[in-house]
Amino acid sequence: MKKKILTIYILTLVLAVNAQDFTDYVNPFIGTSNFGATNPGAIAPRGMVGVSPFNVAGKQNILEKDSRWLSNPYVNENTFLTGFSHVNLSGVGCPDLGVILLMPTTGDVETNHLNYGSNYTNETAKAGYYSTVLEKYNTKVEVTATPRSGVSRYSFPKGKSNILLNLGLGLTNEEGASIKIVSPTEIEGMRTVGSFCYYKPEEAYPVYFVAKFSKPAESFGVWKTPRTYIGEEAKWMTYNGKTRLMEGYQKEVIGDSIGSYFTYNFDKPTQIEVKVGVSYISIENARENLEKETHHLSFDEIYKQTVSSWNENLSKIKVEGGTQDDKTIFYTALYHTLIHPNILNDYNGEYPKMATRETLKTEGTRFTVFSFWDTYRNLHALMSLVYPKQQSDMVKSMLDIYDESGWLPKWELNATETTTMVGDPAGIILTDTYLKGIKDFDVEKAYQAMVKSADAIDNNPLRPGIKNYIDKGYLTSDQGGSVSTTQEYNITDFSIALLAKELNKKEDYKRFIKRSISYRALFDDNLKLLRPRNDDGSWYEPFDPLAGANFTKNIGFIEGNAWQYTFMVSHDINGLMKLMGGPKPFSKQLQKVFDTKQFDMANEPDIAYPYLFNYVKGEEWRTQKMVSKLIRQYFQNKPAGLPGNDDTGTMSAWLIYSMMGFYPVSPGEPIYAITSPVFDKITIALHSEYYKGKELIIEKTGNKGGVIETIQLDNKIHKGYFINHSDLVKGSKLKINLK
Amino acid sequence: MKKKILTIYILTLVLAVNAQDFTDYVNPFIGTSNFGATNPGAIAPRGMVGVSPFNVAGKQNILEKDSRWLSNPYVNENTFLTGFSHVNLSGVGCPDLGVILLMPTTGDVETNHLNYGSNYTNETAKAGYYSTVLEKYNTKVEVTATPRSGVSRYSFPKGKSNILLNLGLGLTNEEGASIKIVSPTEIEGMRTVGSFCYYKPEEAYPVYFVAKFSKPAESFGVWKTPRTYIGEEAKWMTYNGKTRLMEGYQKEVIGDSIGSYFTYNFDKPTQIEVKVGVSYISIENARENLEKETHHLSFDEIYKQTVSSWNENLSKIKVEGGTQDDKTIFYTALYHTLIHPNILNDYNGEYPKMATRETLKTEGTRFTVFSFWDTYRNLHALMSLVYPKQQSDMVKSMLDIYDESGWLPKWELNATETTTMVGDPAGIILTDTYLKGIKDFDVEKAYQAMVKSADAIDNNPLRPGIKNYIDKGYLTSDQGGSVSTTQEYNITDFSIALLAKELNKKEDYKRFIKRSISYRALFDDNLKLLRPRNDDGSWYEPFDPLAGANFTKNIGFIEGNAWQYTFMVSHDINGLMKLMGGPKPFSKQLQKVFDTKQFDMANEPDIAYPYLFNYVKGEEWRTQKMVSKLIRQYFQNKPAGLPGNDDTGTMSAWLIYSMMGFYPVSPGEPIYAITSPVFDKITIALHSEYYKGKELIIEKTGNKGGVIETIQLDNKIHKGYFINHSDLVKGSKLKINLK
Repeated sequence: MKKKILTIYILTLVLAVNAQDFTDYVNPFIGTSNFGATNPGAIAPRGMVGVSPFNVAGKQNILEKDSRWLSNPYVNENTFLTGFSHVNLSGVGCPDLGVILLMPTTGDVETNHLNYGSNYTNETAKAGYYSTVLEKYNTKVEVTATPRSGVSRYSFPKGKSNILLNLGLGLTNEEGASIKIVSPTEIEGMRTVGSFCYYKPEEAYPVYFVAKFSKPAESFGVWKTPRTYIGEEAKWMTYNGKTRLMEGYQKEVIGDSIGSYFTYNFDKPTQIEVKVGVSYISIENARENLEKETHHLSFDEIYKQTVSSWNENLSKIKVEGGTQDDKTIFYTALYHTLIHPNILNDYNGEYPKMATRETLKTEGTRFTVFSFWDTYRNLHALMSLVYPKQQSDMVKSMLDIYDESGWLPKWELNATETTTMVGDPAGIILTDTYLKGIKDFDVEKAYQAMVKSADAIDNNPLRPGIKNYIDKGYLTSDQGGSVSTTQEYNITDFSIALLAKELNKKEDYKRFIKRSISYRALFDDNLKLLRPRNDDGSWYEPFDPLAGANFTKNIGFIEGNAWQYTFMVSHDINGLMKLMGGPKPFSKQLQKVFDTKQFDMANEPDIAYPYLFNYVKGEEWRTQKMVSKLIRQYFQNKPAGLPGNDDTGTMSAWLIYSMMGFYPVSPGEPIYAITSPVFDKITIALHSEYYKGKELIIEKTGNKGGVIETIQLDNKIHKGYFINHSDLVKGSKLKINLK
Repeated sequence: MKKKILTIYILTLVLAVNAQDFTDYVNPFIGTSNFGATNPGAIAPRGMVGVSPFNVAGKQNILEKDSRWLSNPYVNENTFLTGFSHVNLSGVGCPDLGVILLMPTTGDVETNHLNYGSNYTNETAKAGYYSTVLEKYNTKVEVTATPRSGVSRYSFPKGKSNILLNLGLGLTNEEGASIKIVSPTEIEGMRTVGSFCYYKPEEAYPVYFVAKFSKPAESFGVWKTPRTYIGEEAKWMTYNGKTRLMEGYQKEVIGDSIGSYFTYNFDKPTQIEVKVGVSYISIENARENLEKETHHLSFDEIYKQTVSSWNENLSKIKVEGGTQDDKTIFYTALYHTLIHPNILNDYNGEYPKMATRETLKTEGTRFTVFSFWDTYRNLHALMSLVYPKQQSDMVKSMLDIYDESGWLPKWELNATETTTMVGDPAGIILTDTYLKGIKDFDVEKAYQAMVKSADAIDNNPLRPGIKNYIDKGYLTSDQGGSVSTTQEYNITDFSIALLAKELNKKEDYKRFIKRSISYRALFDDNLKLLRPRNDDGSWYEPFDPLAGANFTKNIGFIEGNAWQYTFMVSHDINGLMKLMGGPKPFSKQLQKVFDTKQFDMANEPDIAYPYLFNYVKGEEWRTQKMVSKLIRQYFQNKPAGLPGNDDTGTMSAWLIYSMMGFYPVSPGEPIYAITSPVFDKITIALHSEYYKGKELIIEKTGNKGGVIETIQLDNKIHKGYFINHSDLVKGSKLKINLK
């Protein structure tokens, strides 16, 4: 027996050493300040459900959801917590979800969150875990999650305690919920969500839930608050505008402002676990999701599973060298790219059809939260490289959406097309994915879908202004963001051309490659910048190239100004260079963006700018210096450690690539710009189904703080500062020698 | 062949002559003015569902639901109609139900009832049928009903037409609904109702429905209106406080203010039929109710069935003589007594348990809407006589309620005990029913239930003030309605005594018979009236015997004054007579009630007064004169043809008895006071399961306008002006000879 025990002990030791816990480097507080819009809640990789502390209601808070536009359930500087929301978005610019709020309290039942809210302390956040202590209630809250369930553990003190489920409160003004106490251990119901950005309120939709409690409530009830009536009819209601408690009530209760309470009387400190299953289809599915994913498992067992799932995902990239903080910002960024897109389908495969929300079923995974205007730039490229199976499923989901709605998605959220932001970016992702070698999808359908939105003149939801775009080559100044949208369409048309070429559609190739450079007509030789033109072809006057920075309103550009957009022609940098008078003026003008502080790290249009010096021979060191500087300046191991909104992982994806020393500088094209990596060695496990190589290794050698002297691919000198995707994924070693 | 046709022809003629259509004498407009609170909508006998025109919203109306207390969905004087509600109460004093509102419109969809409401014309109302023409839309609306479904037929003009289902609008301030368009021919959902009298808002509950349309909508959608936000958060919502249309939406929509529209484009005038099934259990049950009761049947076929059902019920009493108007007020009154109590259980027998609303199942009929403070006085006696099977089922429902809630009902509505009004009247009904020979219920349980509320000192929901009542014999003046409630308890205790005697519980009999006359301590010798006493036994001062008339507030009496209550000791008229100094002072004092205009025909406490002259030998003519006068004065074939609120048929039951020449003057005791009938001959079919006699015949002879000279029972002179129930139901002929 002794020998056996020893063997196990040694095995355990070996496993412990080998089984590196990458979640140690995840700090979910990064991005929870400085409008990063992430939250420190517990979530499983690509989980439909996460449990986030909700601290954005109540005037006690610095940033409060009702008195200012706020798109996240949690702000690090805030201090007043009113619950834990079970469906949340991470890194978005518009409020939605942030509902199904659980809150433990003690003492008498209080149903107004402004009264029952509490300060909190001792916050801990890890991948798949968050905990805090509610000061007012001396109650520790721990939360974890499975893909479709949130799990909470409350450590109550002795005495009377309550668990509130507030369906009136939420991140947005959307309302409408139903609740039914099924038994003293179970509650079911639904909450209305939707109206992302307060667009399309007519497409609000239900999210269903089932909550199961580890101990039966000793008493329970539901509350309902009517609106405040005035005049004669108000006199009849003793409860006018006031909450009424419906004690012991077990029938369905419906209304705009409702909730439930479970009450306990503990004779000693007691833990209660609450599991909340969620579905966008039905209560039955929410219950099945809950049961299949959490049945018979304790909080600790579920957390262990979720950590393991995180580890498996994070371990696809191993980094060596760098500081602890470097690793933390890197793996936290990777963690952030593994939150959205997230699964939409239930355990049984059912998910809502686009817009009409009929129930459909998938054999694979139906992904959602496609913020393509952001993510086409780098996140999906990262997925193709590191998680090609996931990317393949995302592409299949895009084609499902096309089948369901007739159009590719632009900003899809839970089977609604929110139509926020501009451009027609889906096609870029499709081309990029295909050209990177992920081909297990219906590429002909994908191509057809891309051409549809590129050519449809009437009722085209993806390309407003397309008539002018086709006729004149550009949108005219009467159309919002006329220049930037022209650029976006150009980039997509370039991707269509690339795919046409690949599919041997020569006529299409010619047509779209020609269309893709029509932005050139908007180049103002005097300003050396892009500039809006009027319908008659004249320049828009008066024109201020600085207008539009910091999200201020302007003509011609969406969320940016002429400086921040002019270089966003990633597919035609050489063309732009010519327009500017050659490499030197181009480089000078590009440097000017940084020197005049027009560069905005916090928004997408210019995030590839630092890599564009690579296009000018001899100026590549500027890319390396600038990227290194931006990493240090904007990305840090602290709540304000993102430059701004994470944009569903786009900022994080920028950081990951930049720290690894290469960047997908021209979305759609399977190429990367090279820069100096932060880490000494990066090992990316390559997916055997998609790539021949087993792993991609990037090594940094030489003067670690210096600039690149030579680049070697598999021990041969590599010319230039770009590298093809195909060269990387055949199982190469990229060696970057600094001087 | 010729012979056969002739035979059929003769047969048809014979049938036509024999099959009298009693519904010809039903005018559902009676009681729709003068606060009668009935409605002219279509309903089946004791239907859970009825379809009533809803004309009480909008300032155009004289009586408007929001600007004054209004308990009915329809007022005859009003002119602006905003839909047709599918669950309604008839003759109650508090608003509830009045929801699930359908409305046909033409032209563009308008969702605000204040805008889409219309004037209307050509109203027709019959038993089971109502129709009108909406002037604004040139659309004829016809409605009928089965017990659990409302059926509408809209005759639309050519062009664009809509059918709106508004779940935001309702008679009360209660809110909260869900709706789901299942297909272009079907909608399902629920609406919250409850809070009758704005009491017990914590017991609000759902009513479910399924609506099926005879033709598929060409387009459809749902609307939802949020509350009006103010401040910063209001700026984000283009739809703040405004209705949003969710076109083509087929997912569940939930909120306080929602509705749906079905739109058609007719190339010629077209009829659409809409059937709405209802359930208090579930959508599934609502669908089953609809399908079982209306499946494959057209509007006309359903109406025919419902008329037939009305005829069957109304035919239990046949009257001869009298004018057309006499017959109309009589059969309309009978119609009104056949609306409430109504069925609560679904087609499959399921119904909600009291308060907790768990699903229970009955083999028989679970009745609801028990307004016992009103109906114990005469309506249930009428049911026992004419519809003993129904009365038996009502009693069984009462005992079910006792089983479910621990207490007999007082004012039960859809499985909630509203606890409106006073007294503990259920026991009176139980005794009355049993002593009249309807014994197929668990009388021991009934007795136990009666004693429970008579004896429970603590937490007795039926008898507030019971401690004083038992200790002192009366409630004290600090308790609202102390005198009248003492009287009510006395009458119930008398009934307990009667049943105790019948069940051979001698001790109980003694105890309760003694308790039943405790009101005597409240008799003020000087005033010759009852008067409240203080806790120390002294008279309440200052005391105004006139205070309390016309529903004004007073001390000592609920909804009445000392004059209107003093004689309400139906079980102890001889005792009261003694207190007053004998028959003559009694008769004089009673006459004074009428002479000083203190008598109130519109409320229950004094409605038996006109019959009390029968207790004084030689004064019986006063009863006959007074009853005849009151019939003519207060009951007429016109909308204002009820003295006031019908009180779920109590006023109507008074009229029916009074026109037949006898009245259940002492509830609980199986006796009737006799007066001169209006009709020459009344034939009541006696139920063979309960009564030996086949029919009871009452005949009026002699000078038809005169007073009674002799009374004969089965051709023998009958002494006195009272008659036992048992004498009537053995198949007797009561002959009343006038001089």
